Amino acid sequence: MHHDFFTIIAREAFEELLRTFPPLPTERVGLDRAEGRILAEQLRAGHDWPLSHRSCMDGYALDARDAFGASEQNPVYLDCVGAPHVDENPGMTLAPGQCVRIATGGSLPKGADAVVMVEHTVCMDDWDEDAATGTIEVRKAAAPGLNVMQRGEDALAGAVVLEPGTRIGFREVGLGAALGFTEMDVFCRPRVGILSTGDELVAVEHTPRVGQVRDVNSHTLALSARRAGALVRGYGIVPDDAPSLIATVQQAVAENDLVLLSGGSSIGVRDLTVQAIEAQNDAEILAHGVAISPGKPTILGRAGQTPVMGLPGQVASAQVVMFCLVMPFIGHLQGQGNAFDTTVRPVRQAILARNVASKQGREDYVRIRFEERPHQLPLAHPVLGKSGLLRTLVDAHGLMSVPADAEGVYKDALIDVWTV
Amino acid sequence: MHHDFFTIIAREAFEELLRTFPPLPTERVGLDRAEGRILAEQLRAGHDWPLSHRSCMDGYALDARDAFGASEQNPVYLDCVGAPHVDENPGMTLAPGQCVRIATGGSLPKGADAVVMVEHTVCMDDWDEDAATGTIEVRKAAAPGLNVMQRGEDALAGAVVLEPGTRIGFREVGLGAALGFTEMDVFCRPRVGILSTGDELVAVEHTPRVGQVRDVNSHTLALSARRAGALVRGYGIVPDDAPSLIATVQQAVAENDLVLLSGGSSIGVRDLTVQAIEAQNDAEILAHGVAISPGKPTILGRAGQTPVMGLPGQVASAQVVMFCLVMPFIGHLQGQGNAFDTTVRPVRQAILARNVASKQGREDYVRIRFEERPHQLPLAHPVLGKSGLLRTLVDAHGLMSVPADAEGVYKDALIDVWTV
Repeated sequence: MHHDFFTIIAREAFEELLRTFPPLPTERVGLDRAEGRILAEQLRAGHDWPLSHRSCMDGYALDARDAFGASEQNPVYLDCVGAPHVDENPGMTLAPGQCVRIATGGSLPKGADAVVMVEHTVCMDDWDEDAATGTIEVRKAAAPGLNVMQRGEDALAGAVVLEPGTRIGFREVGLGAALGFTEMDVFCRPRVGILSTGDELVAVEHTPRVGQVRDVNSHTLALSARRAGALVRGYGIVPDDAPSLIATVQQAVAENDLVLLSGGSSIGVRDLTVQAIEAQNDAEILAHGVAISPGKPTILGRAGQTPVMGLPGQVASAQVVMFCLVMPFIGHLQGQGNAFDTTVRPVRQAILARNVASKQGREDYVRIRFEERPHQLPLAHPVLGKSGLLRTLVDAHGLMSVPADAEGVYKDALIDVWTV
Repeated sequence: MHHDFFTIIAREAFEELLRTFPPLPTERVGLDRAEGRILAEQLRAGHDWPLSHRSCMDGYALDARDAFGASEQNPVYLDCVGAPHVDENPGMTLAPGQCVRIATGGSLPKGADAVVMVEHTVCMDDWDEDAATGTIEVRKAAAPGLNVMQRGEDALAGAVVLEPGTRIGFREVGLGAALGFTEMDVFCRPRVGILSTGDELVAVEHTPRVGQVRDVNSHTLALSARRAGALVRGYGIVPDDAPSLIATVQQAVAENDLVLLSGGSSIGVRDLTVQAIEAQNDAEILAHGVAISPGKPTILGRAGQTPVMGLPGQVASAQVVMFCLVMPFIGHLQGQGNAFDTTVRPVRQAILARNVASKQGREDYVRIRFEERPHQLPLAHPVLGKSGLLRTLVDAHGLMSVPADAEGVYKDALIDVWTV
């Protein structure tokens, strides 16, 4: 059993976690349950898409050569021979000088290679609306392919349309629906067990007496884990007592793919968390801290192949660890390839309202409150106050990061605020 | 029954919808089901929070006057009289020259007004670890309030902690948990009925023949509506046949707070949608188009007090209408106050890679694909291609908006891309 109490891992070492804990297995889910999941297979089109040359507009399908040079001043006249219904496969072939009326989405008959919009045509006196036959005046020239989606233009049969590793959003669901993928292979959602430790904690429905506080982390961590895609199971409040904690961790490890403990940042409570992890079968403490602040006293370990993380008890600190470490890690477990890529964080640019000092050697996260200003970037005010207070959390709109190699950031600097 | 076939409403007129259709009633939900909902009541603290003066650090609680001027060169020596457990209400009162050991979160005894961190102290030779008594050398001065969260500093009893209209996120859940709000009043989630119209449509599990296409919108619109907070019920595919459509719309209106139809942009299909809305009890067509492109042929109506919206059939067009109109409207129905405020859209800045032309009098949305560049803003490439193609949707990362009063945007302009 490896044990180095002073190991504090830097952000770069988070990548090590990804090698230690590979993504979960995959499962087959229906198209309407695939949103937010990561595709685990390559999807290929089963047929050409579109299936035929289709019109993008309401208008008249024709041979572009028949409308060569047409204009309002010099219209051409074509013989409309009907209006195939939108869902018909028109068996006819247009003869020179003929056209058909066509609706958006309709398939072009043989001999037609362009569609002139209805707005650029006029029906002549011989027009029969019921049969959709008669003479059509065309007032605009057409090039081959005008207003036509070509057969296979979206995808030819056998073409790869989605690669493994793609996150499924509305676009991918749309493509999947169009090509008939009623279900697909995706990575499983991690089951995450959450427990809070501390003799001072009481459940939300209880009224604390002096010395007690309600258990906030069980709720905020569960919400954040769910938002990252996890299936959450709560194990409630465990007292600061080694046998209870060891037993609850054992149960949580057996039932989950990741276990999160949050306890006070107190030295004694951290020792207890380490002890509860080390007491599990085939256990190892991987790190006794992370080089981010707040959040430094985070413990990373494993019990068998199950990762176990001990988060600080202070709500705001625990939340920063969730954002920087745990939520990306949950993303990784469900197959997200760029889980720890900080460049994909949603940010808003702002001007820093005052100097922010920072210690070198750790990545500092400072809570920011925006002050909106008309026609200018917002001002970013660091939210001051003790991190144990909830107001500092509620008053903040996002986080600014001060890199580990910087001593701080000056007033008036242009900064990216991570809008968590 | 009001009917003006040429009414095309501009973005500004969306506000009119908000007056016509007020937010839904409220319901009581448990704290863990409140995320994403809009609070419908004012929440006041039931007691001071924190309940007592609490320590932010592991260390020693003392009277700041006893550590006046202390430093490494000139330490002071205090008599530690014990270590109340973190969940205890210490009944003792410190005498001058005394201190107690305190854990993070612990309550200060009477007579103490500051905490010195353990790192700035040394235990002397008489120290008894089990009793936590003995002499403590204090190497740093303390001001009153140092490392202490004051009683009521977060909230005094009776103080408003959350106002109605607040969107519940992890911050508000945390505050709610700390103050014991096990449930809260929130606006109801809108029930949204979705149906697709078109003889050419087949369900995803079917293989289309030439002329047919799979029903994509039922899936993409449902996903977007859910993401906006709706409870979605699907009514499948309805053929282009007035009695069927009228009957299905009637059922959907009876069972939902909002009904979405999507059908071809074909003139005939639009007429059918208008007809199906007008055939309902106490029905009215509110607008026959919206001044956004794509999406112009959108129909807005009501059947009794239930809004009914007819969206274009083309997937990409329907999706733009969802983003600009329907998703904000769903937000409004569940109490979101700034539903149509375009300034809160998530955006990413980029440099436009080519000129984009636009018609005046309508708001144009152009699909954008980012080209990442090291240490520069990304290039924004307009995604070209027919809007009926799915590739143009899948290849895009976001939307740029060209305002109704602009004729276009020039290459090299700094633009905001809405990262939908």
